[in-house]
Formats: sequence, C-alpha cells, structure tokens
Amino acid sequence: MSNTIEFFWDPASTYSYLAATQIEAFAKEHGATVVWKPFLLGKAFEATGNKMPAAIPAKGKYLFKDATLWARLYKVPFAFPKNFPLNSVLASRSCIAAAHAGQGLPFTLALLKAYWAEGQDVSQPDAVAAVATSVGLDAEALLAAAGSQPVKDELRTNTEDAIARGVFGAPTFFIGKQMFWGNDRLPLMAAFLKGELA
Amino acid sequence: MSNTIEFFWDPASTYSYLAATQIEAFAKEHGATVVWKPFLLGKAFEATGNKMPAAIPAKGKYLFKDATLWARLYKVPFAFPKNFPLNSVLASRSCIAAAHAGQGLPFTLALLKAYWAEGQDVSQPDAVAAVATSVGLDAEALLAAAGSQPVKDELRTNTEDAIARGVFGAPTFFIGKQMFWGNDRLPLMAAFLKGELA
Repeated sequence: MSNTIEFFWDPASTYSYLAATQIEAFAKEHGATVVWKPFLLGKAFEATGNKMPAAIPAKGKYLFKDATLWARLYKVPFAFPKNFPLNSVLASRSCIAAAHAGQGLPFTLALLKAYWAEGQDVSQPDAVAAVATSVGLDAEALLAAAGSQPVKDELRTNTEDAIARGVFGAPTFFIGKQMFWGNDRLPLMAAFLKGELA
Repeated sequence: MSNTIEFFWDPASTYSYLAATQIEAFAKEHGATVVWKPFLLGKAFEATGNKMPAAIPAKGKYLFKDATLWARLYKVPFAFPKNFPLNSVLASRSCIAAAHAGQGLPFTLALLKAYWAEGQDVSQPDAVAAVATSVGLDAEALLAAAGSQPVKDELRTNTEDAIARGVFGAPTFFIGKQMFWGNDRLPLMAAFLKGELA
C-alpha cells in the first residue's frame, strides 16, 4: 500500500478548493503524504469530452448549494466568485512557483481562499502578487518565476500525466494506481488506506 | 427539519443501486423515513442536457472501479451487468406495482440485486416475474399491475416532479427542499439531519 496521495487539482474547480482545505489533515490522520499537482482541468475536459458541471444549468444550480453545505461541514469560508469561471493558468503556475520557493502550501491555500472566499480575481497578476506578499514571498520574483519555462513545463506535464492516467475532472486523487474523483471520495479513500476495500 | 427523505432513483443507475442498499439503515439511524420514488433518469437527462456518466469513456471506466470500491465499503454484492445500459421502464413500473401490493422494499432490493449482482436482465418480464416469485408475490398479477394506467401514471408523475425540482441525475434525495445528489452525499445528509449545516 502506497502512503502517498497524488492530488490533481485546478484553482478554477469548486470541489478542488474544498478538497484542498481538507487533504493535508486527512493525509496526516491516515499516515500519508500529499503531492500537490495543479493541472489544467480545461485540457482534461477537451481530451475526454467531459464538461464543467455548470455547463448543465440544473447541475450548476445544485453545485452552488451543494458546495455551500460542504463548506459548512468543513467549517471553511465560501462565497461563490463573481468572476467564475476562472482562467486558472496564472494561478496554477504561481502555485508551482511558490512550491519551488518552498512556500507551496501556504501560498496555495491563501490563493484559493482569495478566490473562493474573498472574491479576488486571481487570474490577474496584481491579485496573485497580493497573495504572495501575504505569505512572505517576494511578489515580483514569484510572478517572474510563474512565467518561466520550467514552471510552464511542470503545469503542462502534470496535465498530460493526468489525462494519460484517466483524469476527467477535479479534484482527482491517486493512491498508487487507484483513482478517486471528488472531495466526496475522502471517506472511501480513508477505508482504502486502512486496507478495508481489498 | 423534515424527517422524511425522498429518494429518487432509477434501476438503471449504478449509484442508485448502491444508495438503495444503504438508505433504509441510514434513515433509521437518523430517525428519518424514506419515500422511494422510482423515476425515469433518461427523461431527466433529456430535460436537463445531462448525460449518463458512461457517455464519457474516461468517466465510464472510472465509474466501474469506483462502484466496485463502494460495494466493498457497503459490503454488498456487485458485478457490472452485461446488459448495460438497462431499459428500466418495466423494472421501475414493477417496483411501483410491488409497493402497491405492500412488498415494495423486498421486491425492489431483490430486483436491484438481480440486475446489479446476478446479471439478470430485468428489462424482461420473465426476469421480473422470477423476482416477484422470490419475494412471495404473484408474478402474473404483478406484471399485470405494472402495465396498468395508475402505475404508469405514478412513474410519469415521479419523473415530472423530479425534473421540476431540479433533478439531473440519480440517485437524488430531498430532505425538505434541500437536494442531495449521489450515494456519496450520505455523510453530508447525516450532518444536515443533525442540524450541523445550518
């Protein structure tokens, strides 16, 4: 049994935000470690023919109410963003750059909160810079790194890897070869990690 | 807080089967009662533009593995049916007829098991008759009732009611006005019933 959880997520995805608020505590509880892998969900939609939930109006309407309940369950702030959907390329690249600078987790959680709870438009450099500053990173250096080739390549590689392994939505987790789609799979993952589903 | 759980489900839906194996015990645990409402998921797909998960190959592939894990978690039998997808009109009507005959729950659970674990083609009268006999119902009378106008009307009414209330998939639960989609929402419903999400 692997004790690594690969966490494929996109800042534009509501349920990725919800999962991101839980996954580190979840992993700790189960003796696992998390590898955060931002990827471009839109590319996975293109590759698989899947669509964002809000493409179906009835599903979009439900999603908002559903996410509100999950946020209450998790006791995390949530306010559906005015600027939805988010073009998440800059946000994802900046999370990778922050990880390279040793501040991946605090930056990522602050960025997700800025978008999913505080209405900041994190597709824009100014908003990303403010997040960087808030966690003690040099904003200018972070934005420069976010535009660098190694960071761009890492986001592309994560995306290609996700698609090759069958990812069609976000968040998606892998424990070894087993894939789990959705924050709602955490209870199933807990049983899997305990060896109860063999 | 309502203590009634309306359970909209379709025999053709994998996750409806999984939910059906759990919902009565779940309701009992939380002091609630279940109202079983078979409906035609295909009509909800037509009305909302949603599609069955298997319409996206990557999603269909995941669904099979995912459902296998849920079945292990729930400790219920599961074998993906050869004759998938199921035309569920007769099966749904026969569940309504069995409920009118006072045997809704045992018949429904036996029918779902016949399809989702034993590979029976419950779109066919012979298979439905065998299920009826197995729970002590008169098979001929049940099939006649399944073809009667009041039963047809009830299935149509359930379907129209579901669509009018925003249902786009199955299973879907309502607790009062709050909708929950998927067997994976049971933990969220538990918190809701305890008043923890207000």
